[in-house]
Amino acid sequence: MKKVAILGIGQTKVDEHWDKSLRELGGEAAFLAMQDAGVEKVDALYVGNMLSPMVSGQNQLGTFFGDWVGLWKQEAVKIEAACGSGAAAFRSALMAVSAGDVESALVVGVEKMTDKAGKDVTAALATAADSDYEVEQGVSFVGINALVMRRYMHEFGWKHEDFAPFSINSHANAMHNPYARLHEKITVEKFERSSMVATPINLLDASPVGDGAAAVIIVPAEKVMRRPRVVVSASAAATDSIAVHSRKDPMFLNAAYLSSKQAYEMAGVKPEDIDVFELHDAFSIMAALSLEATGFAERGQGVRLGLENQIGVSGKIPVCTRGGLKARGHPVGATGMYQIVEVVQQLRGECDATQVDGASIGMAQNIGGSGATILTHILSKEN
Amino acid sequence: MKKVAILGIGQTKVDEHWDKSLRELGGEAAFLAMQDAGVEKVDALYVGNMLSPMVSGQNQLGTFFGDWVGLWKQEAVKIEAACGSGAAAFRSALMAVSAGDVESALVVGVEKMTDKAGKDVTAALATAADSDYEVEQGVSFVGINALVMRRYMHEFGWKHEDFAPFSINSHANAMHNPYARLHEKITVEKFERSSMVATPINLLDASPVGDGAAAVIIVPAEKVMRRPRVVVSASAAATDSIAVHSRKDPMFLNAAYLSSKQAYEMAGVKPEDIDVFELHDAFSIMAALSLEATGFAERGQGVRLGLENQIGVSGKIPVCTRGGLKARGHPVGATGMYQIVEVVQQLRGECDATQVDGASIGMAQNIGGSGATILTHILSKEN
Repeated sequence: MKKVAILGIGQTKVDEHWDKSLRELGGEAAFLAMQDAGVEKVDALYVGNMLSPMVSGQNQLGTFFGDWVGLWKQEAVKIEAACGSGAAAFRSALMAVSAGDVESALVVGVEKMTDKAGKDVTAALATAADSDYEVEQGVSFVGINALVMRRYMHEFGWKHEDFAPFSINSHANAMHNPYARLHEKITVEKFERSSMVATPINLLDASPVGDGAAAVIIVPAEKVMRRPRVVVSASAAATDSIAVHSRKDPMFLNAAYLSSKQAYEMAGVKPEDIDVFELHDAFSIMAALSLEATGFAERGQGVRLGLENQIGVSGKIPVCTRGGLKARGHPVGATGMYQIVEVVQQLRGECDATQVDGASIGMAQNIGGSGATILTHILSKEN
Repeated sequence: MKKVAILGIGQTKVDEHWDKSLRELGGEAAFLAMQDAGVEKVDALYVGNMLSPMVSGQNQLGTFFGDWVGLWKQEAVKIEAACGSGAAAFRSALMAVSAGDVESALVVGVEKMTDKAGKDVTAALATAADSDYEVEQGVSFVGINALVMRRYMHEFGWKHEDFAPFSINSHANAMHNPYARLHEKITVEKFERSSMVATPINLLDASPVGDGAAAVIIVPAEKVMRRPRVVVSASAAATDSIAVHSRKDPMFLNAAYLSSKQAYEMAGVKPEDIDVFELHDAFSIMAALSLEATGFAERGQGVRLGLENQIGVSGKIPVCTRGGLKARGHPVGATGMYQIVEVVQQLRGECDATQVDGASIGMAQNIGGSGATILTHILSKEN
């Protein structure tokens, strides 16, 4: 892969944006990224989105947004990998720039989820799971994750409250992120008393849906003279069976293991070199599983990192420094792009109270389905 | 772009496959392509599909099919560009192989459309158009094309029956393609007496929906020693406004002009060098407009090529040699991949009664929306 630099970033607040149409929402992030990059045109547009055909009655989002942001003639396409759509779009753009076929690309992750009733969105989200062998049996997407969490607690002997630090950390960090959906500090007591969604997952284990968009502009690194610059050191994708029950070990995110292993090799780094890790805490159990599969904890011991206070901004491995999916919010197809934007913010040193001191290597990991499609990206600051 | 070769092809008949699930349908084409290529594994999977979230309640088709065809760990992703999804997936795969990030890729175009009632499919297809400014006004996708056709007839003085040769040619060619949906010769009289869908588009102007899947395996060309081999000489994509009414000239497919111009330059050929052209005859008007924008006819004169008998297998520019969208059928997200497979069949000399003599350069052009996203690929036979 040719070396690619990130020239500009943009994001909207994750919220209930009832006053903005789908095109206005994605357009806002795109325009901000173009403004930040100081460019008005790019060669191609890659859009990550999961739900727009079902929620907004709109397909062909590549051209739809290209039209709106003034790229009337350029190549444009949409990439979908459930909640991993954002990072998958980013990777598609990297491939095109790396192949030399386009010289600059805009990547937009966008999702509008709050225009429909909750039950419709729950049904739409279930399309991430296996329609024949999971959804047909009556299980929802949160239900699948609840089965995994319950088994994990049984197998490794953890209590529900042991997962609290993940949620508390994300909520605390989101307090300092103006783009986050939730600005509310929580405690272990509040975590334990929260309403049950699908036992043992309660409301504070689960990330909130929301409307949001995040975008970046990428170009070949040799085009960027100014220093420091943020470059993509590694990009890797791997998959697992789409149905959780088909896996030999449903409590090991093999696709996270494979894609992070490949990413570490590509970047020439080890887990201990990562200064900040934007992981995919769609549910608190996923935070634990990601840390284990990605080399930060032994199997069944991911929660220990939270309990030992190692996931905060000055911990061993700072995670979800802008609020993560849990508190920044999880506009599903946009999430992977929020993670990329947030890692860039850390490497640029723009994170104020949640800035990781001297952050120079950051990792983002985006998950589609219950561990089915997993993309890992490593970004580095070059001085 | 690095030179890429097509190592294997596979396709299912376009039909009402009520006995096959979505995974079985796409899997069949994938397995046939792997068998034809003589490989059991590839590095990555790219799926082109438009409707599965709405029709089959299934998203994340990359991983869904990777799981089914034995690629449990590999990268997999879905690409969507409405009816241009197939070629868009093919181009994504080309970029990844060209970037050197994957050494071999499987591309599957798949669509299952006949499991739902016609009105639901009509609504799902309308997501290709502009939801805010076209569909909200009550126009269907065929309705938009009917407005363009009516204007074209008015502006250039053509009668409805002048479009008959496109439909007659596609139906005649499909008689010799076992994978085609319709095996029925038609005449001008039959064309003129066909039921009206949206004036002036009648049933024989319009392509039939259907269930189908088509697939290819691609690798870097230098890996293929055997001759002849089929290589990708050019790949280009361009877009236009998503709403037809926003265009300066709604009767000129500017994205077809741009993408074919770029493809000709990349391949170092001119329109007269193209031996076979699989164009996107979703409606007969689109066949005329494609021929004009792609350099085979003057503006407003595309229909003349049909009337002068130049589009048949021994004509000046043979089109839709396997039946085109009109008679092979139009399983929307799969269509672009059927076109690629059919061009490969022509270059390999496997087309029997509709074989173009000495075909060595073939072009496929796939359209998403009413001319909104257009991809042009040129394939060549190397001896």
